[in-house]
Amino acid sequence: MSLFEKHNSVLTKAIDALHSRKFYAAFPEHPAPAVYGETADADGQAKFKAALGNKFSELKQSNAEGWAGQEESPYLQEPLKISYPTYSVNTLINNARSAFHTWRKVSAEERAAILMESLDRMKGRFFEIAYATMHTTGQGYMMAFQASGPHAADRALEAIAAGYEELKRFPSSALWDKPMGKFNIQLNKEWRAVPKGISVVIGCSTFPTWNSVTGIYGSLITGNAVIVKPHPGAILPIAIVVAEIQKVLSENNFDPNTCQLAVDTYDKMITKELAEHKDVKLIDYTGNSTFGSYLEALPNKIVFTEKTGVNSVILDSVADIDKTAANLAFSINLYSGQMCTAPQNFYIPEGGIPTPHGTVTFDEFAQKLVDNINGLIDNPKAGPFVLGAVQNKKTSERVLEAEKFSGKVWLKSRTFENPMFKNARVATPVILEVDSSKKDVFGAELFGPIVFLIKTKNTDESIQLAQEMAIHHGAISCGAYTTNPAVKEKIADEMALAATPVSFNLTGGIYMNQNAAFSDFHVTGGNPAGNASFTNPEYVTKRFTWVGHREPVM
Amino acid sequence: MSLFEKHNSVLTKAIDALHSRKFYAAFPEHPAPAVYGETADADGQAKFKAALGNKFSELKQSNAEGWAGQEESPYLQEPLKISYPTYSVNTLINNARSAFHTWRKVSAEERAAILMESLDRMKGRFFEIAYATMHTTGQGYMMAFQASGPHAADRALEAIAAGYEELKRFPSSALWDKPMGKFNIQLNKEWRAVPKGISVVIGCSTFPTWNSVTGIYGSLITGNAVIVKPHPGAILPIAIVVAEIQKVLSENNFDPNTCQLAVDTYDKMITKELAEHKDVKLIDYTGNSTFGSYLEALPNKIVFTEKTGVNSVILDSVADIDKTAANLAFSINLYSGQMCTAPQNFYIPEGGIPTPHGTVTFDEFAQKLVDNINGLIDNPKAGPFVLGAVQNKKTSERVLEAEKFSGKVWLKSRTFENPMFKNARVATPVILEVDSSKKDVFGAELFGPIVFLIKTKNTDESIQLAQEMAIHHGAISCGAYTTNPAVKEKIADEMALAATPVSFNLTGGIYMNQNAAFSDFHVTGGNPAGNASFTNPEYVTKRFTWVGHREPVM
Repeated sequence: MSLFEKHNSVLTKAIDALHSRKFYAAFPEHPAPAVYGETADADGQAKFKAALGNKFSELKQSNAEGWAGQEESPYLQEPLKISYPTYSVNTLINNARSAFHTWRKVSAEERAAILMESLDRMKGRFFEIAYATMHTTGQGYMMAFQASGPHAADRALEAIAAGYEELKRFPSSALWDKPMGKFNIQLNKEWRAVPKGISVVIGCSTFPTWNSVTGIYGSLITGNAVIVKPHPGAILPIAIVVAEIQKVLSENNFDPNTCQLAVDTYDKMITKELAEHKDVKLIDYTGNSTFGSYLEALPNKIVFTEKTGVNSVILDSVADIDKTAANLAFSINLYSGQMCTAPQNFYIPEGGIPTPHGTVTFDEFAQKLVDNINGLIDNPKAGPFVLGAVQNKKTSERVLEAEKFSGKVWLKSRTFENPMFKNARVATPVILEVDSSKKDVFGAELFGPIVFLIKTKNTDESIQLAQEMAIHHGAISCGAYTTNPAVKEKIADEMALAATPVSFNLTGGIYMNQNAAFSDFHVTGGNPAGNASFTNPEYVTKRFTWVGHREPVM
Repeated sequence: MSLFEKHNSVLTKAIDALHSRKFYAAFPEHPAPAVYGETADADGQAKFKAALGNKFSELKQSNAEGWAGQEESPYLQEPLKISYPTYSVNTLINNARSAFHTWRKVSAEERAAILMESLDRMKGRFFEIAYATMHTTGQGYMMAFQASGPHAADRALEAIAAGYEELKRFPSSALWDKPMGKFNIQLNKEWRAVPKGISVVIGCSTFPTWNSVTGIYGSLITGNAVIVKPHPGAILPIAIVVAEIQKVLSENNFDPNTCQLAVDTYDKMITKELAEHKDVKLIDYTGNSTFGSYLEALPNKIVFTEKTGVNSVILDSVADIDKTAANLAFSINLYSGQMCTAPQNFYIPEGGIPTPHGTVTFDEFAQKLVDNINGLIDNPKAGPFVLGAVQNKKTSERVLEAEKFSGKVWLKSRTFENPMFKNARVATPVILEVDSSKKDVFGAELFGPIVFLIKTKNTDESIQLAQEMAIHHGAISCGAYTTNPAVKEKIADEMALAATPVSFNLTGGIYMNQNAAFSDFHVTGGNPAGNASFTNPEYVTKRFTWVGHREPVM
């Protein structure tokens, strides 16, 4: 059985799922021993521990020009002391250029097979990746497992499926037979999906695999050579993925430099030099808006960005105020607000929120939200694991700064004890009440666990503000609560015009922060939060060019 | 029968043709009385003549703020004296914004039906459009009929089909049902294809309908409001198309301002003001590279360009040198080199061109080409109709300037008599021999009938130069002649890397200048000749945003 035959049925299912947009998961999200093996967790943890303090020597890219690594654990607040091979930009580009000219000629089937095989290998290392993710990003264990493991692998598979489908969208050849009256003109035509060249994928510190694998696999399936430039603070999770890709490439006699890891250090970042290199045609980026906008403006590049946004929650009317507050409190606490989909601005009418049991006032709702947030934090079996740790010291500082904004502080940020990591860098949410006129305060992303409760005249003003924020500052998610179908359609329509997906009336175990491969488009590409979307057709079609040749039939 | 039912079978055929890429034409290209009616030609000519000197009053957009028009016939070298309603940019934008909010909510089916109906109405005016095209662009009668009539309508239908397919790519709703072990999470999800807003389509002077209808119909099918800004020198052909679109809109109770005509004059062009307006989200453009690159760099716009390119012919070896020379001579003469697909640079090895009857030297081939060009020009039944007239006086001046370049002049430009239009502005091709080192001479598009014969060391150098020109200066077409399969694949591969389609070994009645709707992608979007392609999926997907909303199942 060829590698393609081995993976073909999953590929077919993945393409079907892209179109049906119903639930599909190729990689089970629960770290259950029954699925992943009884010793998988312990083995993964042991491997992670063994990596600490050592050279990461798994990569098949050779001739290291140096070794470096500056990762620190937000849980331990200590360096991991792992070092990775480093290379000059010229070496990376030369390696990529050479690998490109082989890889671009490999069939879509073979590319898909190799890439899907690498995901299977990645699956065998989900636990190790989970611990690596915890100790670079500060994510809790469950999120670290799911987001960096099965969810990332599903997103990668989604990109493979979308790319494969687009590569097969048009025939590789056709007979064009045009009747001209007394004779026919016949041309043999052929179409080639020509990859753009060298692709650079720039990672972020909070989701080092989830936010990078779509670009990596999207570029590779379409025949480009990829250089993966991780955030200096979160290398190990994606280094493991790149190592597995390189191993499968080598085993199948392809150049492992088809996908290189390009590690740098805070004091000598190579991102700009890489991005500006004339041979780099594709750039994928997740991170702050300033750098993202700089990349988008680079001439002669095709750039895919996920930048920052101001995510809103519109509270109009609710069926169950307690379930609503509980759901939103979880969304706020989850990974201490360090998700690009976390809510920041809560719009609440000054007249309160109608419920079947009467109207809940602004203050009553604020107090319910605070109580639910505190309740979760103070639950020792849940809080520390839901909140995790804070990746970047600057985020902790920003949270403390936020308390100084004018407006009532409903909840101050505080610390809590993580039973497993006494030295963890933690910060609970700060909740501030601000007037709807204070756009200078709430009209920007304040990354981290910072929430504004904004008193509006009515829901129309809430919608108008949420839309305005999304159009001018970007938005990746939006929550809305209403029991009124007309209001619901108005929110759906106005936020659609701001290219922002809305989660309506979420309660229970599903949160506005979450989105699912094969169903939810992540970032729409239609507002300043980013110009790309996981995984719409454009996300892969922009990575190659259709070129048609033709010749008369002899 | 609904309008959609009326057009559904053609739409289905068009979508199939997009995928099979075999020959398909919804609109017959031959102006045969049997197809279009015995009196269609005479009626069309009469209508065109009746338009001269008058106000163009067919548009349904009302409240003209002025009347203007500066078109001149290249055949008569006299003004047409047709005036069109004019509007300020603010009026145009306000009209478009208002129309947009209705049009964006119209179903894909209804949009497709209205747009296809307008193409049927356009079909009834192909002859009138043909005469309007002749007397604005200088095209010969047959090209004017085909390019502005059936071929343009086919390209418009192609854009409708591609847009319709993309709008239907994902379901409008789905039940997402995720097993969680003891329970399922069920979400009702829905996806909306949200149009970007206001679209401006900027026309060119040489192909006023063909190069504009794809953008117009591509934006309309995806729900955008369109402002059509024709070149001041070529308004009437597209004004007729816009009038037909407006009539069908009005008949179906939609705002005719969904597609407005925005006429300006040479002394007061409104293009920049339109393009830079914050509410304009989409721009389609055909024309020179300087303005095209300015548009591409505008922030927060999605821009589709067809700019200029340097099209090459690579001569390696041929089966029949006379048929080759005849075919290329026709390509050079056709519309006096004023096609974006016309060949400019001919790369010929210094060792000559091998044929089954011996090697043809560089000089022998040059003379054959000159003889074939002259033979066609001097054939009174063919020459004047193939060459047509020169749209812009600057093109005639450029042709004369070209003779001053250093290098042997194989053929000087001259005039000839058009039996129907004694006063036509004409210019036959100039053929110059230049050394392969003179990239400063041949390394730029010299729009018009200007051809360089470039002596290269060998075919490898020819390929290298053709590729370099395409990568650095853009290319829309390429001709190549070789009887060697290895050389053929090398050309196919190297030009594919330069995103340039190659026509191999064309002889007889098919030319490298031509390309067909539903089969040939026009411009690849992958080199500086333009960033868009008629009609690949990106050409329509970039005109809207997928936004998904979701809510728990109650």
